[in-house]
Amino acid sequence: MRAVVYQGPFQVAVAEVPEPRLEAEGDAIVAVELAAICGSDLHIYHGKIAGVLPGAVLGHEFVGRIVEKGPLVPLALGERVVGSFQVACGECPACRRGQYFACLKGGVYGFGLALGNLPGAQAERVRVPFARHSLFPIGDLPAEEALLAGDILTTAYGGVRPFLSPGMGVAVVGSGPVGLMAQAVAHALGAGRVFAIDPEESRLEKARALGSLPINPKAEDPAARVRRETEGLGAELVVEAVGGEGEALALALRLAGPGGVVSSLGVPTAERLDYPWLSAFSRGITFRSSLANVPRWIGEVLALQRAGRLRGSFVFSHRLPLEEAPEGYRLFHERQATKVALVP
Amino acid sequence: MRAVVYQGPFQVAVAEVPEPRLEAEGDAIVAVELAAICGSDLHIYHGKIAGVLPGAVLGHEFVGRIVEKGPLVPLALGERVVGSFQVACGECPACRRGQYFACLKGGVYGFGLALGNLPGAQAERVRVPFARHSLFPIGDLPAEEALLAGDILTTAYGGVRPFLSPGMGVAVVGSGPVGLMAQAVAHALGAGRVFAIDPEESRLEKARALGSLPINPKAEDPAARVRRETEGLGAELVVEAVGGEGEALALALRLAGPGGVVSSLGVPTAERLDYPWLSAFSRGITFRSSLANVPRWIGEVLALQRAGRLRGSFVFSHRLPLEEAPEGYRLFHERQATKVALVP
Amino acid sequence: MRAVVYQGPFQVAVAEVPEPRLEAEGDAIVAVELAAICGSDLHIYHGKIAGVLPGAVLGHEFVGRIVEKGPLVPLALGERVVGSFQVACGECPACRRGQYFACLKGGVYGFGLALGNLPGAQAERVRVPFARHSLFPIGDLPAEEALLAGDILTTAYGGVRPFLSPGMGVAVVGSGPVGLMAQAVAHALGAGRVFAIDPEESRLEKARALGSLPINPKAEDPAARVRRETEGLGAELVVEAVGGEGEALALALRLAGPGGVVSSLGVPTAERLDYPWLSAFSRGITFRSSLANVPRWIGEVLALQRAGRLRGSFVFSHRLPLEEAPEGYRLFHERQATKVALVP
Amino acid sequence: MRAVVYQGPFQVAVAEVPEPRLEAEGDAIVAVELAAICGSDLHIYHGKIAGVLPGAVLGHEFVGRIVEKGPLVPLALGERVVGSFQVACGECPACRRGQYFACLKGGVYGFGLALGNLPGAQAERVRVPFARHSLFPIGDLPAEEALLAGDILTTAYGGVRPFLSPGMGVAVVGSGPVGLMAQAVAHALGAGRVFAIDPEESRLEKARALGSLPINPKAEDPAARVRRETEGLGAELVVEAVGGEGEALALALRLAGPGGVVSSLGVPTAERLDYPWLSAFSRGITFRSSLANVPRWIGEVLALQRAGRLRGSFVFSHRLPLEEAPEGYRLFHERQATKVALVP
Repeated sequence: MRAVVYQGPFQVAVAEVPEPRLEAEGDAIVAVELAAICGSDLHIYHGKIAGVLPGAVLGHEFVGRIVEKGPLVPLALGERVVGSFQVACGECPACRRGQYFACLKGGVYGFGLALGNLPGAQAERVRVPFARHSLFPIGDLPAEEALLAGDILTTAYGGVRPFLSPGMGVAVVGSGPVGLMAQAVAHALGAGRVFAIDPEESRLEKARALGSLPINPKAEDPAARVRRETEGLGAELVVEAVGGEGEALALALRLAGPGGVVSSLGVPTAERLDYPWLSAFSRGITFRSSLANVPRWIGEVLALQRAGRLRGSFVFSHRLPLEEAPEGYRLFHERQATKVALVP
Repeated sequence: MRAVVYQGPFQVAVAEVPEPRLEAEGDAIVAVELAAICGSDLHIYHGKIAGVLPGAVLGHEFVGRIVEKGPLVPLALGERVVGSFQVACGECPACRRGQYFACLKGGVYGFGLALGNLPGAQAERVRVPFARHSLFPIGDLPAEEALLAGDILTTAYGGVRPFLSPGMGVAVVGSGPVGLMAQAVAHALGAGRVFAIDPEESRLEKARALGSLPINPKAEDPAARVRRETEGLGAELVVEAVGGEGEALALALRLAGPGGVVSSLGVPTAERLDYPWLSAFSRGITFRSSLANVPRWIGEVLALQRAGRLRGSFVFSHRLPLEEAPEGYRLFHERQATKVALVP
Repeated sequence: MRAVVYQGPFQVAVAEVPEPRLEAEGDAIVAVELAAICGSDLHIYHGKIAGVLPGAVLGHEFVGRIVEKGPLVPLALGERVVGSFQVACGECPACRRGQYFACLKGGVYGFGLALGNLPGAQAERVRVPFARHSLFPIGDLPAEEALLAGDILTTAYGGVRPFLSPGMGVAVVGSGPVGLMAQAVAHALGAGRVFAIDPEESRLEKARALGSLPINPKAEDPAARVRRETEGLGAELVVEAVGGEGEALALALRLAGPGGVVSSLGVPTAERLDYPWLSAFSRGITFRSSLANVPRWIGEVLALQRAGRLRGSFVFSHRLPLEEAPEGYRLFHERQATKVALVP
Repeated sequence: MRAVVYQGPFQVAVAEVPEPRLEAEGDAIVAVELAAICGSDLHIYHGKIAGVLPGAVLGHEFVGRIVEKGPLVPLALGERVVGSFQVACGECPACRRGQYFACLKGGVYGFGLALGNLPGAQAERVRVPFARHSLFPIGDLPAEEALLAGDILTTAYGGVRPFLSPGMGVAVVGSGPVGLMAQAVAHALGAGRVFAIDPEESRLEKARALGSLPINPKAEDPAARVRRETEGLGAELVVEAVGGEGEALALALRLAGPGGVVSSLGVPTAERLDYPWLSAFSRGITFRSSLANVPRWIGEVLALQRAGRLRGSFVFSHRLPLEEAPEGYRLFHERQATKVALVP
């Protein structure tokens, strides 16, 4: 079958690879209807993920139909599903605690040896291990919407939902795809004001279209502005959706008012963080950073999507045939695309 | 000053009454900017509330400005406020439990001897006892919006918010003002599908405009329809917003699926209810009926109003000068008005 | 194999019955280490459960070891487990909502045609359908303790845990086995005062030993006493653990203070309940009656048992060989036993 | 009147100071029945708190009776009360958010200019500003118990209660007074296993007496031990009760398993913390450090004390007359006392 293959830094190709086959009783094979390129795929594209060797099939965002399945899969052949970007066994101690992202047997598709050695989903078909806990029926939801539930939308949801009370002032640092999803969730669940902070005006435009109040740190101090809009106190919930070395997180920690929560969705590239302990202590800050726990939250996300309350497909700027994946990676890398869908 | 005065069944008048005066250190006098006629005022109009004697000033929904206050009132003179329909002392055992609606010293304006003997707010000015727990600043919110926070909107909010998880299917029995508020709350807080059940098409039109799915029991069996839309199970949350003898509540109890909550906002006119115990036990139903606990929830309601997420003023069909209150009562009684605002 | 068999009203026998066999891929066969007679088994003994025909194997409380299993069972052969009194498929719409007690394919062991036609567990071995969601590992917990987690202890837990905030005053109507379990849960989770109401002094002795304050309705009015102990308000949580025609529930509804919850665990024998609507409305009561949702809560129950915080085996008055089951039923029926364990 | 006065590093004396007087309408004067020396008073004793000048009256833990009060104080003369270590106005934006510890007008008794310039409570009488939100009735609770509710017990409670689900494995770093309170709370609210980590055997003895499992880091690696006791995962809740430069917190962060919460009660003496971001991200850790929010939690704490479920007075090793306060400070400083009560 055809699949997107990593060849080396800044080099991906669409190539013929072996058909996936069932390897365990809990496996399913999904015929991919739509895949997407995620921001974290760019780390691989940039050659920064050591475990991804040339020849690896990329991609961890997808929807499709089950075309083959082992006896432990409680879903029907032909069922239309979204895949969680991360698989979880459902039975190890971490899964039994409900912390599926920490599954002792889990992994992420297309991240090579580092994360479970699972071939990716930017392909005609993909093998899904532990399908019981890793695939979720989507009925007739639009593919671009449902695909987001398997990764960035549920990442955002899990970082907002447990910490949001209706009416709270919410600041979101970063208005890329994940930050926009966080804003969409905050709006859907009854936040008060939502402040969107990003230096790029084109991203702030999207934030404004969602109903957020855009703040450009090039034009004003976000902390001063947020305090001014919140009786001098700061935000009750701050979402950090940038990751990296910690600069965005440092801003996020400044934005939170007394008793506030800083929920960090961004993937760290640094081992350590210089945490403002005394200041955070005196404000009583709660700081949480985590990978998404997709099985925990995807049921609510899909219900909100079915009700038409959570729409995220506006983040897609391109929809390309799978064969044009190299062009998709190039556009995304050059920031000419905000998010790219691939059609096998 | 001028005020709306009860004269007897189907007779109200606007008359000169004595100015209200501070009677305790926690009192405030509010100059009324806007008052409204509530559905429960019609019970008085119909002569059914024994404790309301001729000469009583009516009305318990109002916004205005503080023009006089005792030393225990922690609000500023001139502050624009909404009054809770019910006052609470904040210090009796019930208030200390946070159950302000059960305040041992409280009352409802304009309900005569039965409920604390407090003159009503359909007047130029009104005395507010225990102002600390009974008045809430509203800044520059539109008067029609803020007024709702003191009564029916927060009634609806307290009946939906504690029981709603995002994505839940919600059925609302009754699309009068309270039922519409309940639907608005459900939409604002991320319900899944919202089903609006009412026999009057004009009311269902308003439900549809909010985004609810209208169901007319004259045209189809609501229980069958709700089950069909919920995988055969029934709603996860049912709100009853009719009151009366219990007919609407009997329907509400039929609409709830396993583990569902039936939250009843309607005021009972019957002492007892014929409760379907075995059926509710086998479905694991939780049934709650209560007056609003305004101080508990109004902070969130006002925050959502300020953020523009909860709008309810569409329920007002009329805005009349106080002097035309008799006409307002007549229109409301004859169902030619859905809700009437009065301007002193 | 040997099993306890219903023969007709007031007649049970231990007889040879066919060995259970795996019938579906999700089935397991459990070799019973300990079974027990439950209060609801007495309804069968009294001939009141129409669906139980002569020859039926009785019993729904058991612990044991897995001796055979189908391919869908994610537990090991030899694993020591407790069975939920009720089985649930885990995949129907009700189970997907987390309301396992309402499983569309479920049933209760030993209740004949009415509840899934599942042979009972007062036997040497028992077939467990849907074992994935119906059996739970217990390690080396004492058998009498673990057995309770499969039925009455988790019934009590699910009726107390979601409604209890630390420090709350809790009244429990009935100090039979279920009522005592409810008290034990309230004590373990940090209730304030726990009031135990029962007309039998021997039961109140057990309540007192748990740390509850015993109230005998023959000696004083429980509602007056509870109010006197709660600043005149009534209990914040009331647990009803009697069932029947509703007399105990009527008392429970009187005991609850403003904003209180009445959590009913008892099995109704009447279709309808004469509910004090107006009184409950004015106090803002939440009333919940339900079967246990064992899979939802048993994880916490077993963790508390492992930590030694929830002990319930004191309710057992007798431990008999399986062959003496007829004697056990007789003693239990004659109220000479409080709870009877059977050892196959 | 007589009071404990700071004279300089390692020098306190009992001296005659001016009587406190009402200074605002919300003030009360409390005749102190019992005061105590807190670990944070030692920082002053060591001369490390810049704002505390010679002559300052020390102490922020006390119970007593109201002997004088302004018109805004809703408590009775003669009422027996505990004081929160920190006062809060109840009306500033931070208080209205319920974050009383961040009150814009608040302060801590006996901490000099840095924290509101409030004379301390190790005295015959103390002035309490904002008494409405800073004093809490205690009825006839033993003085040593009630006193703890105003400071370290509620500090511990607020750091455990919001994060604890029944059955959770809890690790507590530090078994000084605050750590022991945290353990007592965990036991009272239904934790699973409680692990107490401290290098001093005498403290571990007290932990063991509470029912905790003691771990001495001199004897074994606490992280390895906690993992071994928690299926290899680590604790679900970790409480840090040491403070200082961050060494104890670094251990706490290692002890937490996937999805775990690290709740830090210790007062930081360092501005910054070297936070293990990547590791915490991959485990999905929530990290919270905060001062106590006494008004938020003290109601539950007092209810649990009244029910006899939370006992902490065992931490007191000494009860001295106020005149012997210098000896008390010396003993506490030399670690010959675990906690010292002073009787005016």
